Amino acid sequence: MNIRFYNAKVLTLKEDETFEIIFGELWVKGNSICYIGNGEDTDQVLKEYGPICWEREIDAEGNLLMPGFKNAHTHTAMTFLRSYADDLPLQEWLFQQVFPKEDQLVPEYVYDLNILGIMEYLTSGITSNFDMYFFPPTDAKASVDCGFRTVLVPGLNNFGGTVEQMEENYHIVNEMSDLVSFMIGFHAEYTTSRELMEGVAGLAQKFRSPVFMHNSETALEVKECRDRYQMSPTQITDSLGMYEYGGGGYHCVYFDDQDFEIFKKKGLSAVTNPASNLKLASGIAPVKRFVEEGINVAIGTDGAASNNCLDMFREMFLTSALAKVREMDAECVSADKILYMATAGGAKAMGLSDCDCLAAGKKADLIMLDLKQPNMQPENNIVKNIVYSGSKQNVKMTMVNGKILYEDQKFYIGFEPEEVYRRANEIIRSMK
Amino acid sequence: MNIRFYNAKVLTLKEDETFEIIFGELWVKGNSICYIGNGEDTDQVLKEYGPICWEREIDAEGNLLMPGFKNAHTHTAMTFLRSYADDLPLQEWLFQQVFPKEDQLVPEYVYDLNILGIMEYLTSGITSNFDMYFFPPTDAKASVDCGFRTVLVPGLNNFGGTVEQMEENYHIVNEMSDLVSFMIGFHAEYTTSRELMEGVAGLAQKFRSPVFMHNSETALEVKECRDRYQMSPTQITDSLGMYEYGGGGYHCVYFDDQDFEIFKKKGLSAVTNPASNLKLASGIAPVKRFVEEGINVAIGTDGAASNNCLDMFREMFLTSALAKVREMDAECVSADKILYMATAGGAKAMGLSDCDCLAAGKKADLIMLDLKQPNMQPENNIVKNIVYSGSKQNVKMTMVNGKILYEDQKFYIGFEPEEVYRRANEIIRSMK
Repeated sequence: MNIRFYNAKVLTLKEDETFEIIFGELWVKGNSICYIGNGEDTDQVLKEYGPICWEREIDAEGNLLMPGFKNAHTHTAMTFLRSYADDLPLQEWLFQQVFPKEDQLVPEYVYDLNILGIMEYLTSGITSNFDMYFFPPTDAKASVDCGFRTVLVPGLNNFGGTVEQMEENYHIVNEMSDLVSFMIGFHAEYTTSRELMEGVAGLAQKFRSPVFMHNSETALEVKECRDRYQMSPTQITDSLGMYEYGGGGYHCVYFDDQDFEIFKKKGLSAVTNPASNLKLASGIAPVKRFVEEGINVAIGTDGAASNNCLDMFREMFLTSALAKVREMDAECVSADKILYMATAGGAKAMGLSDCDCLAAGKKADLIMLDLKQPNMQPENNIVKNIVYSGSKQNVKMTMVNGKILYEDQKFYIGFEPEEVYRRANEIIRSMK
Repeated sequence: MNIRFYNAKVLTLKEDETFEIIFGELWVKGNSICYIGNGEDTDQVLKEYGPICWEREIDAEGNLLMPGFKNAHTHTAMTFLRSYADDLPLQEWLFQQVFPKEDQLVPEYVYDLNILGIMEYLTSGITSNFDMYFFPPTDAKASVDCGFRTVLVPGLNNFGGTVEQMEENYHIVNEMSDLVSFMIGFHAEYTTSRELMEGVAGLAQKFRSPVFMHNSETALEVKECRDRYQMSPTQITDSLGMYEYGGGGYHCVYFDDQDFEIFKKKGLSAVTNPASNLKLASGIAPVKRFVEEGINVAIGTDGAASNNCLDMFREMFLTSALAKVREMDAECVSADKILYMATAGGAKAMGLSDCDCLAAGKKADLIMLDLKQPNMQPENNIVKNIVYSGSKQNVKMTMVNGKILYEDQKFYIGFEPEEVYRRANEIIRSMK
C-alpha cells in the first residue's frame, strides 16, 4: 500500500548503532519505505516515483514510528501449550508434558496455532520471527497467508527429520514467497548424533547457509556434551565445519572463553531468551560479555510453553536488567544497545538486512507506538521509555511488508480472532 | 455506583489461598460487592437491599473479574524521573541524579506527578498503592481527588521529617477519607539515626501501628548496619520495639536466619520489588524461603525512577521467574502463590482486609481482564495465563471503591490525560 505518515516521531539508526529521533514524515510505497524526512525535501523521491497516490494518510499525532521487533528465537505453534504445564522441573516438563502433546500435532493444527502466535506477535510490535518447529512449509504458509515475515530453521534431531527432508524444505520455503525464508539448522547437540550434525554441516556448506541451533541453554547440556566430545556444544559444532557461512545459537547461557572466541571469529549471533531461561531455571546469559566482545546479540521470546507470552517488551527489559544483576553492574547493557538487539541485531541474525531499521529503500516492517500513555511520560528519554517501560498497550499499529496487519487492537490478517481462539482451545482439548 | 456484571468469569479465593473461577454475576452496590454467584440465588441479597436500581449492567462476555492488584511498595510521584538517569551505578544514580532533583520538589509538583502515577496504575489493574514519598497529605489528596485508594508510609530520615510531623500527618491523612490511610514508618536504617528510629518505634506503639521501611535492599546496606550495630536492619529495628503491632519491610533481598525468624514470629510482611532490584543491580530476593516459612509476601513496583514502569504484570512474572532461577528450581513459587501475593498478600501488608478478594461484603476494588486476546489463549489455566502471560493490554476496566476509573483505555478520574502529561514534562524541564 501507499501510506503517508505525518506528524510523526521517527526512530532512525545512526552509524554508531545508537538511535536518533526526527520529527516529520515517513512514506511507504508498496512494501518499502521511500522517504523519511521533514516533508520539505521530497523532490528527489517524487522525481523517482512520480506523484504518489496515497491510499491512506495517517496523522501520527506525535507518536513514534520505529522498526518492528525481530523475535529472533521462538516456536510459534507452541501457543497450544501456554499455561499447560508450568511450575515443573525441566525434564518432567519436557518429557512428560510437552513431548507427548507434540507427538499428536498434525500440520493442520500447527497451521492454526501459528496464526494465534502471529496475532500475539502483532500485538507486541513484532514484525518477523525466527522460528523452529515441526512442518516448516506449514509454518511458512501460515505466515504468508497472514502477510507476516518469518525465517524458518528446522528442528531436526535424532527423533525426527532427515537431512534430505531439510534440503527439500529449504527449496519449498525459499521459493514460496519473499515473506519467508529457510536457513539451515537443527535442534541441539544434546538431541542430535554426530552423523546427523555432519550431514547438517554438509548441507550448510552446499547452500552456503548460516546454521542455528539451541546452544548451551543449561549447565547439564554443556556438561554432557563435554563428557561426550571433550568439547562444548559450540566447539564440537564448529569443529564439524558448521559455521563456514555464519549462523549462531539460541540461548547461549553457559559459554567458556573458547566459545566466545569462536562466536567472535566466525561472526556468529547469540540469541538471548531471558524469560524462558528464568522460568525453566536454566540461568542468566552473559550478555554483557557478548556486547564487550562485539558479538551480535539478538533477542527472542522462545515458545509460549516456557515463557509464556510472546512479548518483546518484557524480553527487552529482562535482557538489560538481568545483565545488570548478573554482573552486579547497573551501568552495563544500556537501553540503546537493547533496542538495537531487538531490531537491527535480530535482523542481522535472521538475514533480514533490508528490515533492520527505518530508512528509504528498506522494507516497511514498522510499528507505531502510542507515546501518549502514562507509562511513556514524561518523555525524558524515549528509547529508555520503550526499553524499560514499554508495553504491548503502547502498540498502536504493526505493519509488515507495507501492509497494516494490526491497528487499534484490530487484526487485518484474514482470520477472525474468535475462531482462532476457538480452534486453539479445541486442539489442546482434543489431545490425550 | 450500582453496577451489575453478568456473563463473567469471577476469580474467587478459597480458604487454602488458591483461586477458583466461577461463571456468573457480580453485583456492586455503592462501594461494595453485594453478590457473587450464578444469578439464581439472589433472594437473600434482594431481601437485604430491596430492589436495586442499576446504573449500569455490563455484559462481561466471558471476561474475567478479579481483585485489583495491590502495589505494595512504590514512590508514585517519582514518575518525573522515569528514564531520566538509568544505566548508572546506584550511588551515582541516587546522589548525583535523583536527590538533587527531589530537592526541587514542591507539593504542587508532587500532586501532579501522583496523578500521572495513578493513571499508570489504573492501566495495569492496580487499585491501591502503598506509597512512601514527600508530602503525605498531598499524596493522599491526589488519590482522594482521583477516587484511588492509597496507604501512605512516611519516608522520614536524617535529612528530612520529624517524628512530630509524622504524628501530625498520621491524623491528617487518617481523617481525610476512607480511601486513604497512614501507617507509621521511615525510610531505612541506613539513612536514619538510632534516636529517630526510637522515636518512630515509640509512635508506632502509641498508635498501635505496624511499621514499614526499606529493609536489606543491598548487601552494602546490611554490611554497614552490621558494622554499626552488630545486627542486621531487621534485628536492630526489632530490638527497638518497632514491630509490636506488625509491619514489614520493602525489598528484603539480603536476609539471614534470624531475620526470617523475626519476620515469622512478628507476623511481618516482606514486600518484594523484583524489577527495581534487577535494574539497580541489587540482587534477587529469597522469595521461595519467605513462602516456605509462611511469611506474608506482597509485590511492589518501586518508583518509576528505578523500574521504570508501574506494571504489576511484569512484577508478577519476575517474582516467580526470579525465584525459580535463584533457586535453580522451576517448580518453586507457583502462579497461584504469585497471584495471591499480588492481591490478598498486598492487602494484608497494607491493612486493607476488606479489599483482599472478591466476595460479598468486600470493597469493590476490582478489575476486568479481557481474555479474548492472543496472550490469554488457549485457556488451559487462567491463573497461569494472568501471572506468566498477562499484560496491561488485557486490562479492560479498573474499579476502585465501586467507581470505574478506567475503561477501554479511557480515564474517569477528573483529569485530562494530555494536561497531566504536559505538566509532568514541564516539571522536569523546569528543574536545574
